[in-house]
Amino acid sequence: MSESAASDGVEMVVAVIRREKVSDVKAALAEVGAPSLTVTDVRGRGSQPAKTEQWRGEEYTVDLHEKAKIECVVADVPTDDVVAAIRDAAHTGEKGDGKVFVLPVSHAVQIRTGKEGIDAV
Amino acid sequence: MSESAASDGVEMVVAVIRREKVSDVKAALAEVGAPSLTVTDVRGRGSQPAKTEQWRGEEYTVDLHEKAKIECVVADVPTDDVVAAIRDAAHTGEKGDGKVFVLPVSHAVQIRTGKEGIDAV
Amino acid sequence: MSESAASDGVEMVVAVIRREKVSDVKAALAEVGAPSLTVTDVRGRGSQPAKTEQWRGEEYTVDLHEKAKIECVVADVPTDDVVAAIRDAAHTGEKGDGKVFVLPVSHAVQIRTGKEGIDAV
Ligand SMILES: Nc1ncnc2c1ncn2[C@@H]1O[C@H](COP(=O)(O)OP(=O)(O)OP(=O)(O)O)[C@@H](O)[C@H]1O
Ligand SMILES: Nc1ncnc2c1ncn2[C@@H]1O[C@H](COP(=O)(O)OP(=O)(O)OP(=O)(O)O)[C@@H](O)[C@H]1O
Ligand SMILES: Nc1ncnc2c1ncn2[C@@H]1O[C@H](COP(=O)(O)OP(=O)(O)OP(=O)(O)O)[C@@H](O)[C@H]1O
Ligand SMILES: [Mg+2]
Ligand SMILES: [Mg+2]
Ligand SMILES: [Mg+2]
Repeated sequence: MSESAASDGVEMVVAVIRREKVSDVKAALAEVGAPSLTVTDVRGRGSQPAKTEQWRGEEYTVDLHEKAKIECVVADVPTDDVVAAIRDAAHTGEKGDGKVFVLPVSHAVQIRTGKEGIDAV
Repeated sequence: MSESAASDGVEMVVAVIRREKVSDVKAALAEVGAPSLTVTDVRGRGSQPAKTEQWRGEEYTVDLHEKAKIECVVADVPTDDVVAAIRDAAHTGEKGDGKVFVLPVSHAVQIRTGKEGIDAV
Repeated sequence: MSESAASDGVEMVVAVIRREKVSDVKAALAEVGAPSLTVTDVRGRGSQPAKTEQWRGEEYTVDLHEKAKIECVVADVPTDDVVAAIRDAAHTGEKGDGKVFVLPVSHAVQIRTGKEGIDAV
């Protein structure tokens, strides 16, 4: 488990997208050669300030929107291709399409085989 | 999508907090100028060793506590201000208040506009 | 909250494992001296290309598998020991055992005490 085994070029692509776009994003990732992914149900808020509304005379703040978070650790496929695939598949042009973030990964292990680094992803 | 576009100063602040503190943290983040966030229902355990209890003569281990995870990617607002806002809003002084972790982000894209780096956050 | 406070050696270990292995992994982490963790229900897909099956004459794609994500921020216990503990406890040898990824953490705060860096983890 040496530092160098995984340090070059393994990254985690984290995307928060519309839930109804998960299927399209899954297909796009498989097409670009990066089919592995983890999906989490999340809720969130983007850059619009919270909207205050009225209901039966009471003020309330519009709550968080339901979204899906996709995590996709990539090594041999260029990260840029993965980000572009997600961006294109998740895009509608309306507010709320989401964001893609890339985080560095310093080590990776596949549990079944014990493989490490790029071979583990 | 150049490396340099997002490499300076984009960070992901990850906080695990009491679920009943999510509203206060949302308000505190908006006030400090970082309203965007993603919330996930999680469960967890802190530094106390697992407690073993008895029930009808059977030993069992106290399970995980329900918490909320807040993820907040920040660029133009100083990360320290965001961390301090979360810390103050989530604080009760009792055990179980949670933790804040900061992770580096190497790239960011806003899906609707295609904007990258700091402008995407 | 200086950069240097947490920059040396704080890492987030992220593991996606079988849900039925969460108890064993919790026990293994406690044994190795890293009991703190956050668990999220997720679903995912590994390196096998999506399987297309037939049901009543209709083709459909086999959906994502239910998994658990474990996040474990470590500082004083060596990351390699934590990764090995998870790997051994989550291993069955069958396809679908999961992956472990390690991400750098640049800062950490314990909300109750305000402690920072290694002391916060
Ligand atoms: N900076 C951020 N940190 C964490 N999560 C974010 C951030 N920005 C957006 N998100 C997540 O992405 C989801 C969708 O964001 P959204 O697309 O509305 O962003 P936006 O900047 O408001 O863009 P738009 O103007 O196109 O709506 C949010 O509900 C939230 O879960
Ligand atoms: N090192 C860690 N890695 C991952 N998650 C953690 C870690 N420490 C805490 N958490 C998450 O934060 C939640 C709350 O932790 P908690 O506040 O109990 O931490 P603590 O160190 O025990 O502090 P306190 O003594 O104030 O209780 C946990 O249930 C868990 O989900
Ligand atoms: N590269 C990856 N990025 C994000 N999540 C992943 C990745 N690889 C695996 N996962 C997560 O781990 C879970 C289990 O993966 P799995 O063990 O099937 O990986 P695998 O490479 O197919 O190995 P095996 O051949 O042993 O099945 C997936 O359902 C997914 O949630
Ligand atoms: Mg928006
Ligand atoms: Mg505790
Ligand atoms: Mg598999």
